[in-house]
Amino acid sequence: MAVKIALIGGRGQMGHWFQRFFTAQGLEVLVADVDTRQTPEEVARLADVVVVSVPIPKVSEIVRAIAPHLRPEAALMDLTSVKQGPMTAMLSHFPGEVVGTHPLFGPGAKTITGQTVVLCPGRGERWFSWLKELLENAGARVKVTTATEHDRLMAVVQGLSHFTLIALEMAIRELGVAPKDLEDFATPTFSTLHNLARRLFSQDAKLYACIQLQNPANRAALRALEDSVADILYFIQRQNADGLVKLIEGVKEGFFAEDNDKAEGG
Amino acid sequence: MAVKIALIGGRGQMGHWFQRFFTAQGLEVLVADVDTRQTPEEVARLADVVVVSVPIPKVSEIVRAIAPHLRPEAALMDLTSVKQGPMTAMLSHFPGEVVGTHPLFGPGAKTITGQTVVLCPGRGERWFSWLKELLENAGARVKVTTATEHDRLMAVVQGLSHFTLIALEMAIRELGVAPKDLEDFATPTFSTLHNLARRLFSQDAKLYACIQLQNPANRAALRALEDSVADILYFIQRQNADGLVKLIEGVKEGFFAEDNDKAEGG
Repeated sequence: MAVKIALIGGRGQMGHWFQRFFTAQGLEVLVADVDTRQTPEEVARLADVVVVSVPIPKVSEIVRAIAPHLRPEAALMDLTSVKQGPMTAMLSHFPGEVVGTHPLFGPGAKTITGQTVVLCPGRGERWFSWLKELLENAGARVKVTTATEHDRLMAVVQGLSHFTLIALEMAIRELGVAPKDLEDFATPTFSTLHNLARRLFSQDAKLYACIQLQNPANRAALRALEDSVADILYFIQRQNADGLVKLIEGVKEGFFAEDNDKAEGG
Repeated sequence: MAVKIALIGGRGQMGHWFQRFFTAQGLEVLVADVDTRQTPEEVARLADVVVVSVPIPKVSEIVRAIAPHLRPEAALMDLTSVKQGPMTAMLSHFPGEVVGTHPLFGPGAKTITGQTVVLCPGRGERWFSWLKELLENAGARVKVTTATEHDRLMAVVQGLSHFTLIALEMAIRELGVAPKDLEDFATPTFSTLHNLARRLFSQDAKLYACIQLQNPANRAALRALEDSVADILYFIQRQNADGLVKLIEGVKEGFFAEDNDKAEGG
């Protein structure tokens, strides 16, 4: 018999993406959202694997509501971008198997092939192994880590990178530069940055706000960014070219020491 | 008779790029640098178009040295990333034709086709038109503007974008995240950002320091970025999700209002 999946919040973009994915894997998928006939509690009762795909601030409330209805041998998993809070919620409200899941791609991805999915083992091994195998057989790169380590890395990979793109575009808007001028006078580097920002701003602002606010590791990351900005400005305000060169070369040695390519810049 | 070009500073990466470019256009190119047999003054005396391709802080000194040796009917041009300072130097030391030039690409570009070159008319029309036509016939997109407007736009296109990439990588280094982890847990957005930074850091730190320090419009741009960082942090520190969403949506409306695509994010 096919494994039965319950998708709670299946009308969201990522929920919908995983509905199609699980269905394509030959699984039976039940969807519950605010406007579906079946309630989250009802589909949770019927499933082998219950997938919570709701906005980060709602995870705890939904988990608390559905947990008493899950079968003891079922697994509970989420799809959110932060892991510490949601995993604590899942582990404390449900005594069965728990897997934290974070797909590192957006709903625009055509297939899962080559995409990375992070899994955080919560409790139990049976459904964890099942999910890992399912994803890997479909072509995904699965990375296994703890919730704490996940959040520490995502504070950089998502928190810092979204933050800098948002700050950059805010500053450009503040300066009153016309979009047409930006296009006409773009360097290859600027074009790429501006297009990344365009992609970010084309998606749900609430998701990006959540990622900034809900990851406890973000505070340290943003403090590091604030310090970096202040350090660079220190040398610029003093017109200290040597200091600025040393600072840039310090980062280069720490990170890109092996690079010698003279790539297209601008 | 072919137009004769003198390249002052032709051993630098961009000087060398333009040596190959001008030669490929059938022009005769004389190169002078610190280690060449002919001095800058000697080649300047022989040329129809004298191209100064030296680091930004050296432009003034070199222009002052060679200007008395140029033929009155010759043109003087530069290739630097800022325009106000270098153009003032060229116009005040040389009474003939002057063209400010900024190729918006790096020495890694294979050809000039599709690349943007900014021209700032300084004095005279003959050589300006000649250069514009030469570049356009070779496939470049030529944008004509004033030195002030160029610098205002480059404070965003180069100043801000380099600044944010440098600050991002400094912060990552500060946080002590291992490069291997960044690779394993990268989202598509982070990969692209990190690769842009890698490309920036693979080039000459002095050039990037100069671009930060020599463009007078950078102060306002960096102040705007500083304000943006403070504004976003204000909402994050107060865990104010609504404020953060409004801020992101404000930038979106100002800039990307027409975008509705749900692109691949992460």
